[in-house]
Amino acid sequence: MMPLIALTMGDPAGVGPELCLRALGPDRPPEATTVVFGNANVLAACARTTGLPFHARIVNDPDAIRPGLVTEPTVLDIPAIRMDEFTPGTVNAATGRAAFTFVDHAIDAALASRINAICTGPLNKEALHAAGIRFPGHTEIFAARTHAPRSCMLQYSEEITCSFVTTHVGYHEVPALLSVDRILDVIELTADALTRIRHRTPQLAVCGLNPHAGEHGLFGNQEEERFIIPAINAAAAKGIHITGPLPPDTAFLPERRRTTDAIVCMYHDQGHIPLKALAFDSAVNTTLGLPVIRTSVDHGTALDIAWQAKANPGSLFHAIRLAAQLASPHH
Amino acid sequence: MMPLIALTMGDPAGVGPELCLRALGPDRPPEATTVVFGNANVLAACARTTGLPFHARIVNDPDAIRPGLVTEPTVLDIPAIRMDEFTPGTVNAATGRAAFTFVDHAIDAALASRINAICTGPLNKEALHAAGIRFPGHTEIFAARTHAPRSCMLQYSEEITCSFVTTHVGYHEVPALLSVDRILDVIELTADALTRIRHRTPQLAVCGLNPHAGEHGLFGNQEEERFIIPAINAAAAKGIHITGPLPPDTAFLPERRRTTDAIVCMYHDQGHIPLKALAFDSAVNTTLGLPVIRTSVDHGTALDIAWQAKANPGSLFHAIRLAAQLASPHH
Repeated sequence: MMPLIALTMGDPAGVGPELCLRALGPDRPPEATTVVFGNANVLAACARTTGLPFHARIVNDPDAIRPGLVTEPTVLDIPAIRMDEFTPGTVNAATGRAAFTFVDHAIDAALASRINAICTGPLNKEALHAAGIRFPGHTEIFAARTHAPRSCMLQYSEEITCSFVTTHVGYHEVPALLSVDRILDVIELTADALTRIRHRTPQLAVCGLNPHAGEHGLFGNQEEERFIIPAINAAAAKGIHITGPLPPDTAFLPERRRTTDAIVCMYHDQGHIPLKALAFDSAVNTTLGLPVIRTSVDHGTALDIAWQAKANPGSLFHAIRLAAQLASPHH
Repeated sequence: MMPLIALTMGDPAGVGPELCLRALGPDRPPEATTVVFGNANVLAACARTTGLPFHARIVNDPDAIRPGLVTEPTVLDIPAIRMDEFTPGTVNAATGRAAFTFVDHAIDAALASRINAICTGPLNKEALHAAGIRFPGHTEIFAARTHAPRSCMLQYSEEITCSFVTTHVGYHEVPALLSVDRILDVIELTADALTRIRHRTPQLAVCGLNPHAGEHGLFGNQEEERFIIPAINAAAAKGIHITGPLPPDTAFLPERRRTTDAIVCMYHDQGHIPLKALAFDSAVNTTLGLPVIRTSVDHGTALDIAWQAKANPGSLFHAIRLAAQLASPHH
């Protein structure tokens, strides 16, 4: 049975609707059945404007969405927006509110096991703000709705996969956020996710914090010795295949990436610099540790090209595929 | 007239001697005349052991080394080591001492304008230490001998070129080392070097320190607003073509690299991660701001493969070429 993935439509004024049409259309990823959580009138209008085909079953009852019951491209029609409330390509309070509502419904469905995973279309931060919604993005919405005791960001691609001990904090805040427990949490979440993706025990590597991974205490405050090495040893004692701490500048070389399933990074740019360099178009963002599986496109609403059939669905298709992999029975 | 480049032999027990034979041989870089500062008996022994050809003029008098006077591959024979004092492929006090002596002579020659630039062969940190020499590497030797008021590291390749505001310091020390003056110094040194390499006004970019370059103060201690932006503005006011601060994770994308001659980085791994990923074999290390031009191979003595004709001379040839470019008349 193929996993049933909820694809949230994102902000109706952005590229979300046309990407939903792609995900429902003939070139859709074959690894999952997709049900769009969005608005059918918006999708129909977007199809007329862009010339993209729109063939999908449209349902109104959330209870009609069940794994096994839904086997063809489907739209759960949520009456959260009307076409006369907004202009495509612009920031609107109405579309910010609607985008939030679609996500909210998808989380309900995931928590009730009516879907196997969620793939989120792009939100617009300004539109959310205009709608009076206090969340800056998906990560915070999912955290608030699910109260996960531990979670972390994973960026996945065929070329390079990184998980993160810290993410959107200032450079100077990173050292104080490192601890053996936090690093071990991220290692365990990463090992669990990669096991589901690869269907075998994955090989992990962990970056040091300092240049040359501190060169045995020569640089830094011995963050490697105090936090990173004890976490690696604790993970190894639990049977996780793991190595490190690696000098950050050689951790991402081709030889290393060939033999490593994921690299645990200490801070945002340590992983995002090689990720963008090596997998700009294909990396998928996912939050590990939540009670629901969630992956995301790696781009924004792209208002400047919205409703023109110009948006590349590659990132979305990768995100749907990864959601399907993470929803595999190992979970 | 071709620039005259002093190539120091590095540690005699490592791959330095065979790389000197390559740099004197038929495949040598045509952009420069190379004079090896080393020992002729060691080179002859290495040629016999490896089967590499050894054809060069051998001179004993440092005063015979002059631009214009030396026009063919030459060795300045320095009697700092005998073959019976060491075993190739091992760490020796005698070879550490000799390697230092070759560098010392090359700096003398450069300060006296008897050569146009220095390209340094690999030193062995342990051998230097065994010889009682207190310098850990070339950077410190050159700094001590030349007392440069400001200097910085530049890593140059055709793919990607980065200069560094800070280098071998702990992660946590970086923010306190940033200042408008220091960043402006590095920008100016970088602009000057790239002007000599490109023979035109270069386009520079500067990275932020924080994720997303701080996103207008959202992350970090406003290091972008307090230090980086004022330095960029001061550089622009001096006529330097410059942009930034860039989000570090998108600063190294192909589009940016195509239109940018060098990227100024705030810390070691910000630049070394993409450098190793994109130009592992070809990046050349140089120290800007010294009264002498100095470039370096980007590898060590590689004792495990020394004296076997296995060492790839690519990095050395790139380093000789860059030394020749930096020694161009604009200097």
